[in-house]
Amino acid sequence: MEPNASNSMQPDHCLEITPMEVHKVVPPPHRSTIQKLKSRFKETFFPDDPLRQFKGQPLGKKWILAAQYFFPILQWGPNYSFRLFKSDIVSGLTIASLAIPQGISYAKLASLPPIVGLYSSFVPPLVYAVLGSSRDLAVGPVSIASLILGSMLKQEVSPTTDPLLFLQLAFSSTFFAGLFQASLGLLRLGFIIDFLSKATLIGFMAGAAIIVSLQQLKSLLGITHFTEQMELVPVLSSVFHNTNEWSWQTALMGFCFLVFLLLARHVSMKNPKLFWVSAGAPLVSVILSTILVFAFKGQRHGISVIGKLQEGLNPPSWNMLHFRGSYLGLVVKTGLVTGIISLTEGIAVARTFAALKNYQVDGNKEMMATGLMNVIGSVISCYVTAGGFSRSAVNHNAGAKTAVSNIIMSVTVMVTLLFILPLFQYTPNVVLGAIIVTAVIGLIDIPAACQIWKIDKFDFIVMLCAFFGVILVSVQDGLAIAVGISIFKILLQVTRPKTVVLGNIPGTDIFRNLHHYKEAMRIPGFFILSIEAPVNFANTTYLKERILRWIDEYETEEDTKRQSSIHFLILDLSAVSSIDTSGVSLLKDLRKALENTGAELVLVNPVGEVLEKLQRADDVCDVMSPDALYLTVGEAVAALSSTMKGRSSSHV
Amino acid sequence: MEPNASNSMQPDHCLEITPMEVHKVVPPPHRSTIQKLKSRFKETFFPDDPLRQFKGQPLGKKWILAAQYFFPILQWGPNYSFRLFKSDIVSGLTIASLAIPQGISYAKLASLPPIVGLYSSFVPPLVYAVLGSSRDLAVGPVSIASLILGSMLKQEVSPTTDPLLFLQLAFSSTFFAGLFQASLGLLRLGFIIDFLSKATLIGFMAGAAIIVSLQQLKSLLGITHFTEQMELVPVLSSVFHNTNEWSWQTALMGFCFLVFLLLARHVSMKNPKLFWVSAGAPLVSVILSTILVFAFKGQRHGISVIGKLQEGLNPPSWNMLHFRGSYLGLVVKTGLVTGIISLTEGIAVARTFAALKNYQVDGNKEMMATGLMNVIGSVISCYVTAGGFSRSAVNHNAGAKTAVSNIIMSVTVMVTLLFILPLFQYTPNVVLGAIIVTAVIGLIDIPAACQIWKIDKFDFIVMLCAFFGVILVSVQDGLAIAVGISIFKILLQVTRPKTVVLGNIPGTDIFRNLHHYKEAMRIPGFFILSIEAPVNFANTTYLKERILRWIDEYETEEDTKRQSSIHFLILDLSAVSSIDTSGVSLLKDLRKALENTGAELVLVNPVGEVLEKLQRADDVCDVMSPDALYLTVGEAVAALSSTMKGRSSSHV
Repeated sequence: MEPNASNSMQPDHCLEITPMEVHKVVPPPHRSTIQKLKSRFKETFFPDDPLRQFKGQPLGKKWILAAQYFFPILQWGPNYSFRLFKSDIVSGLTIASLAIPQGISYAKLASLPPIVGLYSSFVPPLVYAVLGSSRDLAVGPVSIASLILGSMLKQEVSPTTDPLLFLQLAFSSTFFAGLFQASLGLLRLGFIIDFLSKATLIGFMAGAAIIVSLQQLKSLLGITHFTEQMELVPVLSSVFHNTNEWSWQTALMGFCFLVFLLLARHVSMKNPKLFWVSAGAPLVSVILSTILVFAFKGQRHGISVIGKLQEGLNPPSWNMLHFRGSYLGLVVKTGLVTGIISLTEGIAVARTFAALKNYQVDGNKEMMATGLMNVIGSVISCYVTAGGFSRSAVNHNAGAKTAVSNIIMSVTVMVTLLFILPLFQYTPNVVLGAIIVTAVIGLIDIPAACQIWKIDKFDFIVMLCAFFGVILVSVQDGLAIAVGISIFKILLQVTRPKTVVLGNIPGTDIFRNLHHYKEAMRIPGFFILSIEAPVNFANTTYLKERILRWIDEYETEEDTKRQSSIHFLILDLSAVSSIDTSGVSLLKDLRKALENTGAELVLVNPVGEVLEKLQRADDVCDVMSPDALYLTVGEAVAALSSTMKGRSSSHV
Repeated sequence: MEPNASNSMQPDHCLEITPMEVHKVVPPPHRSTIQKLKSRFKETFFPDDPLRQFKGQPLGKKWILAAQYFFPILQWGPNYSFRLFKSDIVSGLTIASLAIPQGISYAKLASLPPIVGLYSSFVPPLVYAVLGSSRDLAVGPVSIASLILGSMLKQEVSPTTDPLLFLQLAFSSTFFAGLFQASLGLLRLGFIIDFLSKATLIGFMAGAAIIVSLQQLKSLLGITHFTEQMELVPVLSSVFHNTNEWSWQTALMGFCFLVFLLLARHVSMKNPKLFWVSAGAPLVSVILSTILVFAFKGQRHGISVIGKLQEGLNPPSWNMLHFRGSYLGLVVKTGLVTGIISLTEGIAVARTFAALKNYQVDGNKEMMATGLMNVIGSVISCYVTAGGFSRSAVNHNAGAKTAVSNIIMSVTVMVTLLFILPLFQYTPNVVLGAIIVTAVIGLIDIPAACQIWKIDKFDFIVMLCAFFGVILVSVQDGLAIAVGISIFKILLQVTRPKTVVLGNIPGTDIFRNLHHYKEAMRIPGFFILSIEAPVNFANTTYLKERILRWIDEYETEEDTKRQSSIHFLILDLSAVSSIDTSGVSLLKDLRKALENTGAELVLVNPVGEVLEKLQRADDVCDVMSPDALYLTVGEAVAALSSTMKGRSSSHV
């Protein structure tokens, strides 16, 4: 080291960077526009590369693979054994005992005739068994989709005054939900459901659970004049303005069965091996309450019952679908919302259990399967179905091995439809209410909410918005608000990307955030910034202002020595994954603005795509000079500080 | 090097990485949630730190600074000199000569009475001179906003059958445009205009220019029965279905003046010093044509003229504003669209000239100034005004120094309104058409379009969508389509973030994209991935699938030696600027999935915010083990390969 090293223009601690060969930034290998578009297209719509396994196979094998792709039953069917069947029959019967009371209850939740819930537990599971790729999903009506379907249709048509039209609209909505789900899968737009974040879903589910539970106060208290609205305020006011209608017999019965069901749920949660306790409890409650009502002539004591159900299998309903007319907008919208929500739940459930058993579930394939299931269902008197969480958990715990458990369940429901329906005549509505409350209470996930609060405050706000939106405004508006806020957050991140001032960690050539690593040090004469986002039209204005303000702040800082004004602005572009025309202009403008202050712009490590665009712009814009482009910040600093030294000594 | 270095488990070229002290990843300095929210809030809404200059000033000085902030005239006013005034009077008179014919023409473009265009060139420039921060902006009616205002209002109200209502709606829209602009500035939401990318604007402007020019065929050909629609097809069909209405005298006159104006424009473009040629040409044309019509009794030859204009200054119009009623939705929507568009143009123009003269224009302040200008204008018979590009360019070229040139222009217009109006009675409409065509032709920017094609094909597509959307569908739909596509592109980038496989550049500890830097080499036993985007709910599903597929592909590659299966997956998080709860779950899931294959997950250089969230999640999720976190990829590889060596030798 020279003796006059006290000259602060000479960045002395830079000398520790070993003067090594400077590496050139090279352009990426040439690819044509078509090739680039193709690979971008593939990465966007086929990130899972579904045709991978077809490569290099003979034609016959390809046909078999294709058939297996569309009908996963062909994949696991040939290897099906009696041992697997034994497991499946146990789990199938278990979920059937849950599916029958839940089917009736959820149909009531959607303001549909109870029998439609049973129809929907018969056909869709059969379709899913052939098309679906999950081994654990138990298919049937689900609470949230039922709630949304009912609440959206009720806004325009009353299920009590015009039940036939309401039913037609429900089937039509189911058709469009299925069509929409299948199209999402076919067009490989499955990522749309990714915009429902975990936080949104937790808040939404909890809100929906409360709305659903409040609705059950009608049957639990035996109120006859109940509001048609869904929100917290009108429901509570309806409950407390009709106290004269409360029936103590109904309330007592409801309370007892609710306690019984919640206890059963508690037992199964404490010990998953006792899954059959909670799985069997609803059926036991139904049987017990039906016997009670029948024995004590409950109707005479003001306990309302389901009433007579028509025996027989699903009637066709294709002539009930609305493809035109004034309600088309309503059914399309309802189909869209219920379709997305039930898809989100189903795929999340399928993925959870697939991860537990270590197999893959293909999101787009699942969408096509669910979609077809709903389209077929809609022409044969079924309403929206999906893979429900609680039922699939029971299925999994009961030891289901394949989709055969769905077939077993379906057959059991069929037997019920054909022979056992009259027995439900005396089943009291209050017990159905208790079953629904027990089912949805599990959707309120307080530990997850606490964890979100702990990790990310903004996510927590999104969750609260979804929650309060659902219980105070309306189910679909709460969801829309939460999705809107989530997307707004993403856009805000894009509009306000992070810029970080880097400093050198002494003794190394590592450069890190000055405000994070306290030992990192500024290098006199250099200002090193890292941009941590794609640079595009939405953030170039901000970036320009922010970068110029960084420099301005630095130069007016009191502890900055006057002689170490900025000679080089080094922009580390490692994290800039893409750039557009506005971004290229930004660099051009920055260079010009810096030239006015006598500083130079140096770019470090632009990635392939960015480098290419800069080079293409070069002959028009003069963005890059070849000596202002380095592979690492360390090399840039080392090379430039020797230039600077030379320059300053020539001035002396 | 040991002689048995051929053992490929031992990554021999790694030895070149000097075995240095491994640097710890430290958590960022602690800040409370409130502090973090505050700094995030500031960075989002006050990125320009407008209160910076107030810091440490005495109270009196603060008041002065605040007054100067809101009324920039107080900033430059006291230093105003006669020398500056000489420049300003020249430029003011120049732009006045342009503003008078353009004001009349643009009002006709918006289907408003010509006099409203003059009113709008009188008051708004005065307001802007007091509030605006640009020294070059020349304020008045602009072509695009006039076109949009007219076309949107025409969809519901006809300007010919109900001119008074149309005028009322125009003033009301102006009021809401101003209110909206001022609110954007006040709420510091100025970044909303950033969502109109350069590509969108170029396409939109070119489309609008064509629509506007086509509209002028009515006056240029003297057609009396012209369609009220704006789009290409109906306008052309209207032109060619009314060939019998074409008036050769009008067409001849229009052609001559068009050639004259275009020539004048061409001269000024070739030699900017001759700016006065194109600036004066419109006024010369108006005077010349008026004299011609008057001398030859042009009306008798089918040449339509403006007609009698009422002398006098702007009448008040506050009683004409619609704040309720059936048209409220229309005027709010029109105000919103015209407000945003004129703001975008105005701010872009102000920034362009500020950059040329090296002074700052504050976007949010400009919005408040423009907004107030329009709110005041709307109550005194002005319609939407903004800083127009062509007029401001003339102003700049004519040597304008301050906003006083706007005052000069305003006074000139006032004199016109008071005394000279009767002289316009014989001005033919055809010459106004020629003036409009000449003005808007400059909005078609073909070189910029070529450059966009060269740099970014996707931006080019966005541009084409805006262009064809405007000329084929409608002005506002074309704009909406282009903005929608731009935002979709951003969301797509977020949903499909880039993951890049890194390799070591031999002889260094630099790690770069394997597919870009051909000399980069894989290190056996390691798989090094860099994620180049914030990790959030919208991309975790994709990232998980993609990362697992990377590993899968690598392990099934033919040239991979069997013995070098992956022991460590190193994720370089340098470019992950933020993470949310879903992202934290992703890392947890990845760790679990890798454990099944016997590999370990190692994280490198998480930035402050990400590190904090991972740590907070740690006690619940077990995401990070302390020995799986390094500061650089090089250090991670160096440290882990020695572990691996130890492990493999203990197996032997």
